[in-house]
Amino acid sequence: MSKPLILVTNDDGINSKGIKILVDIMTKFGEVLVVAPDSPQSGMGHAITVGNTLRLYKTKVFNGINSYQCSGTPVDCVKLAKHHILESKRPELLVSGINHGPNTSISVVYSGTMAAALEAAIDDIPAIGFSLCDYASDADFSHITGHVEKITRQVLDKGLPVGVALNVNMPSIKSGPIKGVKVCRQARARWKEAFDERIDPYGERYFWMAGDFNMLDNGEDNAVWAIKNNYISVVPTQFDMTSHEAIQELKNKIED
Amino acid sequence: MSKPLILVTNDDGINSKGIKILVDIMTKFGEVLVVAPDSPQSGMGHAITVGNTLRLYKTKVFNGINSYQCSGTPVDCVKLAKHHILESKRPELLVSGINHGPNTSISVVYSGTMAAALEAAIDDIPAIGFSLCDYASDADFSHITGHVEKITRQVLDKGLPVGVALNVNMPSIKSGPIKGVKVCRQARARWKEAFDERIDPYGERYFWMAGDFNMLDNGEDNAVWAIKNNYISVVPTQFDMTSHEAIQELKNKIED
Repeated sequence: MSKPLILVTNDDGINSKGIKILVDIMTKFGEVLVVAPDSPQSGMGHAITVGNTLRLYKTKVFNGINSYQCSGTPVDCVKLAKHHILESKRPELLVSGINHGPNTSISVVYSGTMAAALEAAIDDIPAIGFSLCDYASDADFSHITGHVEKITRQVLDKGLPVGVALNVNMPSIKSGPIKGVKVCRQARARWKEAFDERIDPYGERYFWMAGDFNMLDNGEDNAVWAIKNNYISVVPTQFDMTSHEAIQELKNKIED
Repeated sequence: MSKPLILVTNDDGINSKGIKILVDIMTKFGEVLVVAPDSPQSGMGHAITVGNTLRLYKTKVFNGINSYQCSGTPVDCVKLAKHHILESKRPELLVSGINHGPNTSISVVYSGTMAAALEAAIDDIPAIGFSLCDYASDADFSHITGHVEKITRQVLDKGLPVGVALNVNMPSIKSGPIKGVKVCRQARARWKEAFDERIDPYGERYFWMAGDFNMLDNGEDNAVWAIKNNYISVVPTQFDMTSHEAIQELKNKIED
């Protein structure tokens, strides 16, 4: 039996530590193809490059691994892999990450890591976004490599529901021993931005976006609770954004 | 009673025809604040500007209307309006668009128009993304202004379910008379990209993303069907991306 083809991408860029760790793990499972952004693309959500050109170059960042860096977003990387590099070949799995920092709760909508996973799921490719709850560029991943391996093995063996990608968040090593894995829902929360206003050397005003995370959810079945209690959270995440339960109410309000 | 405050944005940029039409309509309902991108931001999805600075300037694009242009994405515009320009004031409605081109089906995940609406919904602000199924920059909007007014009135009067924004798509005038309004679900479909490979004047390769829309859905309750049959489609769209129905199946597969 031939080894499965595994596509690897991320949003922190091809030179980040997280993707190196992920590539190392994936070589145990199959043939690896890396297509990742040439620079950090955090917060790019499901953005694609439509009004501008894309660059794609072969790299030697990963020893002996077929890999490319792309000037675009994480979703551009997946689209270039699917529809240009691979031609008629099809990956059996896409993994994205390992992100430096959490992608729990509402952060999923801003996350390039998870957008890349969802872009694969749109094409019925099983996909997992992995995030470590530690923003440090030299973060310690040693405590979670075994968990990444185990979840990957489970997905390769058992598949995923159609239209669903996994959003896997893992506690920082500083939080102590991991207690296990919890399948969760997205927590209700939001970011409240505080824009840091500054004046540039030319006298013009500019802003940096900064913000605080506001947790609005007291449940114990959500990913933020799981992380806080030192579990790995796994949220089945979908690209069907329809609020099916609102359809009937809106029919009464809006239709003629 | 004071007039409601209505926040207007888009993803085609502050100089597009669609936002001018939308601002004109909204002045009938209340006090209008415009915060829109200074350049086209199509396909930016829910991207935010985190690794770079933002610029925000007052403009006089709209006669007598309080308006700003921003160097960032549609979601940046909403965040700057909510957390910087408005301070403690709160809009009673956000409208985004009118987009030049459809945002039906899977296009919702790539859409800056809908991301702006969802960003408002995250803060419990009722929000509507309007799109016209005509990409032309001089598209004719005359046949749909009455419909935009009517839907806006209904949302202002009756509100929206919590966590839900409306994705409203409207047929082109070239398709003939509009038959009515249908509340729909997101159609199953995907884009299949074909990258147009070229060589720049310096001998380096670059790509333009292009693609075909692949419809995978035979239902008559989805937005693509509605548009094809000359109805206005209204899809209740949410930012909870959890596949709640997959949770139990995954608990069996993944949890320890």
